[in-house]
Amino acid sequence: MQKIPEATIGRLSVYSRYVGSLEKKGILTVSSAEIAEGVNGSPAQVRKDLAYFGEFGTRGVGYNVESLNQQIIKILGLSIRWNVVIIGAGNLGSALTQYKGFQNRGFNTLAVFDNDVNKVGLKISGVPIYPIDRLEEFVKKENIQIGIVAVPFQYAQEVVDRLVKAGIKAVLNFAPCVISVPSQVEIRNVDLTVNLEILTFNMGANKF
Amino acid sequence: MQKIPEATIGRLSVYSRYVGSLEKKGILTVSSAEIAEGVNGSPAQVRKDLAYFGEFGTRGVGYNVESLNQQIIKILGLSIRWNVVIIGAGNLGSALTQYKGFQNRGFNTLAVFDNDVNKVGLKISGVPIYPIDRLEEFVKKENIQIGIVAVPFQYAQEVVDRLVKAGIKAVLNFAPCVISVPSQVEIRNVDLTVNLEILTFNMGANKF
Repeated sequence: MQKIPEATIGRLSVYSRYVGSLEKKGILTVSSAEIAEGVNGSPAQVRKDLAYFGEFGTRGVGYNVESLNQQIIKILGLSIRWNVVIIGAGNLGSALTQYKGFQNRGFNTLAVFDNDVNKVGLKISGVPIYPIDRLEEFVKKENIQIGIVAVPFQYAQEVVDRLVKAGIKAVLNFAPCVISVPSQVEIRNVDLTVNLEILTFNMGANKF
Repeated sequence: MQKIPEATIGRLSVYSRYVGSLEKKGILTVSSAEIAEGVNGSPAQVRKDLAYFGEFGTRGVGYNVESLNQQIIKILGLSIRWNVVIIGAGNLGSALTQYKGFQNRGFNTLAVFDNDVNKVGLKISGVPIYPIDRLEEFVKKENIQIGIVAVPFQYAQEVVDRLVKAGIKAVLNFAPCVISVPSQVEIRNVDLTVNLEILTFNMGANKF
């Protein structure tokens, strides 16, 4: 299969959530134009994105909603449920623990880890906060595949190193710094400040 | 000036925070190798990124820390303070309101807006929660340039339309949907679920 652009993967994730909402309403077929309208995209883009994975649709009829969603879910690696830990029980870590967008897509947050003794032992919406010392043991024992890092940047590389040693497969890093991982570990950085500063750059770009 | 890749802008934001931390420590000069080490990047990349904006450094001496940081701050549009509102006082909106990464870079969150009467009148770390009905009036009166949208996706386009009508210049959207804005308004989407699903896709990609 040809290499799929990351932007396409991102849009598939959006299409899938929209098509999933149609499935819940009992709708059986959907056209690329309807998907495009539902996600504020263009029909040509929808068709192009779905074409990376072969022909799902029937001309004039559209896509079978259930089958299309199942295929996208499979492509995105979401046929299985993923076990997740979140490191950092601050504002952002707490918000991510309670974020329904993750739960709805099959991500199970089993625990949050923090080094603050005042937080350890508490729960965030039912998810326990454990001491950071127990991180490696828990990741191994519970076969955690994904770690979400929401600690201050000074601690982020150390936390990721510990996750990697414990056998984590992927890291979603919210700490505002660049993190090194071995090539077999997937990493994505979501730097919230970078996103704001790209906006302010673009607002001011015409001044140069 | 040639068009600067968005990835470069993102890295400038990271460099700037690192160089700013050196400035606070009283350090006067820094080499590209030192910046690279501080942000886990490569010296060649640092030099290439900074070269987009002309020569800041002196061969063999490095960059003047204060002057380099001032230049990047100016490039990123951060010489002025930006007034921000956050729409949505849920978990994510609350976390963003308290996010120190924004405050540290000169973003002033003046208010949070929500339609929940039980939240209106409360404060989040000193920032007042106002009723959504007052959004347009507040944006106009306080000359708000940036709106951060953290509402459920069903309401996101409507909220952005209201922000645009009130004169907002840029939107950072966390709702998991595609939002339309007029061409003069800058928008960035941070879809947290997309980021996780790109990871799970990449983990499973070798299965196709």
